[in-house]
Amino acid sequence: MIIQSILELVAICTKKGVKNVILSPGSRCAPLTLAFARHPEIHTRTISDERSAAFIALGMAQQLNQPVALVCTSGSAALNYYPAIAEAFFQQIPLLVLTADRPPEWIDQWDGQTIFQQEVYGKHIKKSFQFPDSFGDKEQSWYAARMVNEAINTANHFPKGPVHINIPLREPFYPSENESFDFPEHPYQTEISKGTLHLGEESLKKINSKLQSIRKILIVPGQQKPDEKMVELLKSLSKNKRVVVITDTISNLQSEESINFHDHWMGNQEVTKGLEPDLILSFGKSIISKSLKLFLRNSKAEHWHIQENAEAKDTYQSLSKILACSPLFFLNWLNSNLPIQDETYYDRWRELEKSILNNLNDILEQSQFGEYKALHQVLKNIPDLSKIHVANSMAVRYLNFLGRRKQEIICNRGTSGIDGSSSTAVGCTFTTKLPVTLITGDLAFFYDRNAFWHNYSMANLRIILLNNHAGGIFRLIEGPAKQPELQEYFETKQKLNAKSLANEFGFTYFSAKNEVELDSALKDFYDSGVHPKILEIESQSPLNAEILKSIKEKVKTILPSA
Amino acid sequence: MIIQSILELVAICTKKGVKNVILSPGSRCAPLTLAFARHPEIHTRTISDERSAAFIALGMAQQLNQPVALVCTSGSAALNYYPAIAEAFFQQIPLLVLTADRPPEWIDQWDGQTIFQQEVYGKHIKKSFQFPDSFGDKEQSWYAARMVNEAINTANHFPKGPVHINIPLREPFYPSENESFDFPEHPYQTEISKGTLHLGEESLKKINSKLQSIRKILIVPGQQKPDEKMVELLKSLSKNKRVVVITDTISNLQSEESINFHDHWMGNQEVTKGLEPDLILSFGKSIISKSLKLFLRNSKAEHWHIQENAEAKDTYQSLSKILACSPLFFLNWLNSNLPIQDETYYDRWRELEKSILNNLNDILEQSQFGEYKALHQVLKNIPDLSKIHVANSMAVRYLNFLGRRKQEIICNRGTSGIDGSSSTAVGCTFTTKLPVTLITGDLAFFYDRNAFWHNYSMANLRIILLNNHAGGIFRLIEGPAKQPELQEYFETKQKLNAKSLANEFGFTYFSAKNEVELDSALKDFYDSGVHPKILEIESQSPLNAEILKSIKEKVKTILPSA
Repeated sequence: MIIQSILELVAICTKKGVKNVILSPGSRCAPLTLAFARHPEIHTRTISDERSAAFIALGMAQQLNQPVALVCTSGSAALNYYPAIAEAFFQQIPLLVLTADRPPEWIDQWDGQTIFQQEVYGKHIKKSFQFPDSFGDKEQSWYAARMVNEAINTANHFPKGPVHINIPLREPFYPSENESFDFPEHPYQTEISKGTLHLGEESLKKINSKLQSIRKILIVPGQQKPDEKMVELLKSLSKNKRVVVITDTISNLQSEESINFHDHWMGNQEVTKGLEPDLILSFGKSIISKSLKLFLRNSKAEHWHIQENAEAKDTYQSLSKILACSPLFFLNWLNSNLPIQDETYYDRWRELEKSILNNLNDILEQSQFGEYKALHQVLKNIPDLSKIHVANSMAVRYLNFLGRRKQEIICNRGTSGIDGSSSTAVGCTFTTKLPVTLITGDLAFFYDRNAFWHNYSMANLRIILLNNHAGGIFRLIEGPAKQPELQEYFETKQKLNAKSLANEFGFTYFSAKNEVELDSALKDFYDSGVHPKILEIESQSPLNAEILKSIKEKVKTILPSA
Repeated sequence: MIIQSILELVAICTKKGVKNVILSPGSRCAPLTLAFARHPEIHTRTISDERSAAFIALGMAQQLNQPVALVCTSGSAALNYYPAIAEAFFQQIPLLVLTADRPPEWIDQWDGQTIFQQEVYGKHIKKSFQFPDSFGDKEQSWYAARMVNEAINTANHFPKGPVHINIPLREPFYPSENESFDFPEHPYQTEISKGTLHLGEESLKKINSKLQSIRKILIVPGQQKPDEKMVELLKSLSKNKRVVVITDTISNLQSEESINFHDHWMGNQEVTKGLEPDLILSFGKSIISKSLKLFLRNSKAEHWHIQENAEAKDTYQSLSKILACSPLFFLNWLNSNLPIQDETYYDRWRELEKSILNNLNDILEQSQFGEYKALHQVLKNIPDLSKIHVANSMAVRYLNFLGRRKQEIICNRGTSGIDGSSSTAVGCTFTTKLPVTLITGDLAFFYDRNAFWHNYSMANLRIILLNNHAGGIFRLIEGPAKQPELQEYFETKQKLNAKSLANEFGFTYFSAKNEVELDSALKDFYDSGVHPKILEIESQSPLNAEILKSIKEKVKTILPSA
């Protein structure tokens, strides 16, 4: 039976820009599946593993900056979405999660594929809705349509995020022979005209007076999408040595004016002495560098966070002001109103930055071959006009050591899990013709291998797999490295390499165990082709640890003294 | 730093029979990992993909009938446990879920690997606890120890199920050099002496009087573990044609006296006319047969359910009595007190049973080769003394067609998902030296392939993979088969076969596309060996659908008329 409110749901989606849908197989969800598949303006794809399906949707929505819809059947399918939903929630990525359900009378009655789906995503969803399960009264159709509008508007409004509509469906799920899919041309629609939040004269006056006593400003942008306007504004603010901008790789705001190599020396208290700011100014989401976080927490500086609502995070344990406006607005204002600052403060940071900038290349060239050096070599070969997905754990940390990139850097830093890195990158390939490079460790890679288990082209996907046959990070941090349980319980040694997987999924496979092999593999790696390509760089976890240590030692020697 | 309350947690586990732990790698959980790994009475294993880890624990707990503990790090790891936790909840399997967390002050502050872990399993957990995060007052140590006792007692008490302790941990996570793991010899312990629920004289008298007007009793056991005593009791009740016992394959209570082939004709209303009982008597969990469910719902019979608490399910829409006592107690009483019943009722059921029993073999022998016939052939070769895990979707349905088995039949019918069938079977292999056969379709198999991604022996695992390169069930049910979207959106055609996977994980691989190849593959299949073995039976989804239809037609012709 065709349910008119389901057709209207789909029609509302198209009107509101939700045009991509990731479906997973099932019968309970057939009314949704058929309606999405049959609407000419909707692009659907089917992914069998719902965990991957949801991360793929997230990878798409991240690029499209529009909600992508997810459709699954009843039961544990919805639970397999959960890791990606939590990631989307903390990374503020809009998703429209549509879960088919049994009607309420059949919940918890030993009927198949039934769990408690209402509100199942707890605190990790912006809003949860329960779709009506009968439409005898026309108010119920209005209720359904209003709900879909509200859900999409909520997903799209700051902070963006996932929303959930649980949809109870009764049999029959399939249209009878004489039924046709007539989508409403003018579905119920509540548009939002978005305002921009400015601060009033009164607030700015207060801030201005506060600024008079501040001489050292550190701007710390968190994770965000590339933003040319913001980069220019930050450069302008840095002019005349007025502010120091410190940019982790996931900030996507790195420039020749910002501090990009801080992770090399931030944990060194001798070096950071005197670098404490008077004011930390942040916007965007999280940062990667743990030593930067610790430095800021210990600095006793005031922290102001700029974002368009009141719920800021106190990451540096000194949050004294929330500037509830757009970061562009405030920084523009600051640019015109900033009093004279301490130029020597700026100079100290630049000097440190330059010491790494001028020496890191040589240090790496001289170092032994391992994943650190290999990644350095790889990065030189990635086309400027492309996107880099990087998995959590060591991959993103290495990237943070290696300085400024021209490509967009994408990483699941909402929950910082390794569970969906590959799927997120696959989702990205569905939205662009540019090369998408996934840089990943072996644990993250094999964990999420179902990312590739589907029938859609990923010809622009390039995978750099740093395979040390273990969770190498555990050897690189001090605690676990000293335990006799290191190999079995922390590193979790694993034997696989990617050759078999490449063969299975039709990827073009390259491998490299040294510099020569790596150079040779990289030569045509970014030439276009029909198949995704994977370059597996094998290295030894203990050697990687040694190399990292030795590079750290060398870096110490080239740092200017405080 | 070693936390004494964590050591006591581990010590309490050993005292209360929780001796198996599945760990997943992480640093936040190191205090738990090290304490479990270093206790001489605990057996630990490390599994990297938490989704598989949790299903493996479930597969173990199912066999051990004791909680298995799960330990993961903070963040999305806990969410990857969720599908298995929901399955455990509905299948009433005890699990002790221990999730490491950041301390409360760091939740939702843009710190890495942090989600909202408290109460994260919503309604799908028997009870959730929050471990203390400091132990300055000795009451806090008592609180922690009491909590662990309460959690394990709750997991073990009817209905058994998963419990969750969220454990906030502060750095340092690792012991300093002078610290040692001194487990308390006499940890705090609250034992439970379990009672048996009997019904009182008064209740039994009422029931007795009710029984006087009943002439047709259908006993419908739901999913449960094998129980010799219960089989004997049911046989005794069936004697003199007093009751009809109808047993789905997952009831594990099939006997030569019970009805095992009902799924062949239950949907045929001409045949079932007159089979409606006066009373449905059920115990255990869910049944598989959808046509049996529909038949019972339409029968207008009274339904009494026997179980040791008040929350029964109304699966047949006529639940009039909950007998809150042990099924053995009530059926024993019934055996001595049952008034004379309608013998012709019993005869009708037996006649139907015999018609299939006597003809199915011939019908299958004459049918074309496809997954149905192949499975029939396979089942004849599985050793009596062994365990059979069967995946959801078609695999378990075929098994239900194929009648009585001597082996224990295990299937994730709590949520009926395909997400963890392989991992559950792997968990089972960790608890027994008997052969464990996993019968699975290709979607379930590749979905859960991380089941095999670890370093532990599964030498007794035998996998029968029915690979039709799709979710074949969607071609076998009427609705989707008629839609043009069948292949892409419902069946979800997939190209993989298992050869590459077998190679990757070191499984001995056999394949069969016809009877001769199948016979040959089966010859040594159950010989013991060092490696798990997989037998991939390739078939065509459209042909399977035809065969099923044609067998159904043939079965119709051999059924006795009503």
